[in-house]
Amino acid sequence: MRTLAPFPVVEHQRVVLEEGLTLDCGATIRPLAVAFRTYGTLNAARSNAILICHALTGDQYVAERQPVTGKPGWWSNLVGPGLPVDTDRFFVICANVLGGCMGTTGPREEMTDEDGRGMGRPWGTDFPTVTIRDMVRTQKKLVDHLGITRLLAVIGGSMGGMQVLEWAATYPDSVLAAAPVACATHHSAQNIAFHEVGRAAIHADPDWKGGRYWEDGRIPAQGLSVARMIAHITYLSEEALMRKFGRRLQGASAVTFLEDVFQVESYLRHQGSTFVRRFDANSYLTITRAMDYFDLSQEHGSVAAAFENTPTRFFVASFSSDWLFPTSESRALVRALNAAAARTSFVEITTDKGHDAFLLDEPDFHRALGGFLRGAAREAGL
Amino acid sequence: MRTLAPFPVVEHQRVVLEEGLTLDCGATIRPLAVAFRTYGTLNAARSNAILICHALTGDQYVAERQPVTGKPGWWSNLVGPGLPVDTDRFFVICANVLGGCMGTTGPREEMTDEDGRGMGRPWGTDFPTVTIRDMVRTQKKLVDHLGITRLLAVIGGSMGGMQVLEWAATYPDSVLAAAPVACATHHSAQNIAFHEVGRAAIHADPDWKGGRYWEDGRIPAQGLSVARMIAHITYLSEEALMRKFGRRLQGASAVTFLEDVFQVESYLRHQGSTFVRRFDANSYLTITRAMDYFDLSQEHGSVAAAFENTPTRFFVASFSSDWLFPTSESRALVRALNAAAARTSFVEITTDKGHDAFLLDEPDFHRALGGFLRGAAREAGL
Repeated sequence: MRTLAPFPVVEHQRVVLEEGLTLDCGATIRPLAVAFRTYGTLNAARSNAILICHALTGDQYVAERQPVTGKPGWWSNLVGPGLPVDTDRFFVICANVLGGCMGTTGPREEMTDEDGRGMGRPWGTDFPTVTIRDMVRTQKKLVDHLGITRLLAVIGGSMGGMQVLEWAATYPDSVLAAAPVACATHHSAQNIAFHEVGRAAIHADPDWKGGRYWEDGRIPAQGLSVARMIAHITYLSEEALMRKFGRRLQGASAVTFLEDVFQVESYLRHQGSTFVRRFDANSYLTITRAMDYFDLSQEHGSVAAAFENTPTRFFVASFSSDWLFPTSESRALVRALNAAAARTSFVEITTDKGHDAFLLDEPDFHRALGGFLRGAAREAGL
Repeated sequence: MRTLAPFPVVEHQRVVLEEGLTLDCGATIRPLAVAFRTYGTLNAARSNAILICHALTGDQYVAERQPVTGKPGWWSNLVGPGLPVDTDRFFVICANVLGGCMGTTGPREEMTDEDGRGMGRPWGTDFPTVTIRDMVRTQKKLVDHLGITRLLAVIGGSMGGMQVLEWAATYPDSVLAAAPVACATHHSAQNIAFHEVGRAAIHADPDWKGGRYWEDGRIPAQGLSVARMIAHITYLSEEALMRKFGRRLQGASAVTFLEDVFQVESYLRHQGSTFVRRFDANSYLTITRAMDYFDLSQEHGSVAAAFENTPTRFFVASFSSDWLFPTSESRALVRALNAAAARTSFVEITTDKGHDAFLLDEPDFHRALGGFLRGAAREAGL
């Protein structure tokens, strides 16, 4: 199995599971590669493992330098020695999602036939449609492979939070504690709409070539960049944008009637152009679609039914200025968990930083999550 | 002067003002064509004229069939015989904005040299940058041309509301009553950001050709369509999207892993594809930029200073679920008007229809605006 798409190729730590995985759509992927990173030490009882699930454009490098960008891990303010997710105490696992582009099987990786033989080309848009549950099944195989029967906790924000919910619903006996953060039990019509516009921008880029851009080594950079710009606006709040940029002009001291006159514009364009260097367009299409399909109540009849008599304890967190996954959706989740007799705690963090807040230094959030994990560890006899 | 861009050419009623207009950016456009429509009859005293200002993608066909789309006028539920803007009583004027694409001088129209001679090609991206104030100056020339010294009222929503504010600030003695609806005194960082992504989508379309798409008769349909899709989401509310589409699937009875599976996606794509048949991409770039530049306090030192001792009476209206121009921005306007000792009334209409509500059947809004206009008419001795 090789990574074939036109990208800087990075060697990722991964396991290759020969038995593969049969997906919700009916297709089987064989073999199944899962790229992952671990931090800390698994104890003898294998009872101190915490799985972290990443968001749409995240990856497994949660608490260390990301090898492509050279930037710190995306949750390195939360995960590490002495931090709320304390790697001196817990064994932390983070895997690249199924359909991703950082080493786990996805559109960039070499396509395999029914017998698992490499076909000398990447999957591209022939990669099957995957769901959040397929991502979770993939992680379960990794966790099994590592010899862990029950996770102390599963934690994630945004799409990572969807995976947390799916973990608790699908494998209740394997999850002692679950922390779905800044997420919802389904993707809203507005969120589907924003995703669809991003996909339309990728489809509109002639370099996308119907998904076969890997044939000539080009990437649909402009379309993917526009998709990222749209998404990035939804991650911030109006207040955060105003505080960061206001209506400040870029360079010029007055309205000069040039392009990119406002700082917010240069910032967004920069976000778009750096993103395309690290992310695969077909992965973006695959993963946004998985988020759109996510709907726990459609899967289980109702959200409460998904968690009926669950042994898992829950920590639900939302952020007051998050308009992508507003607090009202977390409250609805909490109501359903209560109806399912689940042990549930809920915090809404007051912040003006929007959806992005789950990744930023939010002391109240970090303290609350740290306390929740200490409680779970006590229950596990750690 | 001719319309040269690759579009179905429609003959519009217009005046051609040979003296032209000098713009905020310093350039002079000569001659200046203004396409407009009128409804009702101007009285002998010329005291019953109401000017209506249209929004970003609107036009002068406010109360009659739009000649390109064949659809009813965009405010035909508000403007007409016996309606709140009563054309049995008032003389209603609506002009296509400067930089537009429905007959007023703009990127689609034939470029002219310094002496006003046609150059045999459209302006395209050589059309100078315009401001909301330039649009209003253009309308003032039309109103002067029609022999009207003082308007009974100026009314507009969204970008139309920006023009209303600019009218009252620039020509206070020419505006007896002003109704800025669903707008703000400046364009927010988030709104600039959404506009910028739309422009990036147009720029990314190879058929845009740096703005010279008129050379080979093609239009940047995909980029303009994506821009429209982005904007359209911001015109609706999450509640409106959920009510209209929810997570209902398109055609299929279950999650089928095809493209365009959700109804909201087909709807958005349809919005995008119909828009490109009626709107010019370079006009879209020009007008969105004018909105971004709009900032009354930057122009006048403060919003209150813009209206100090104004004789105009104001009616400010906002819509509770409008997140593009939220009520908080209308409240800030009202505070500034009060500080300027202006006669001001304010209504927030409770609705779940988002920014779009200003165009829809909102009886409370229509009643309140109708009452305001009757009051203004009484003051004018009508």
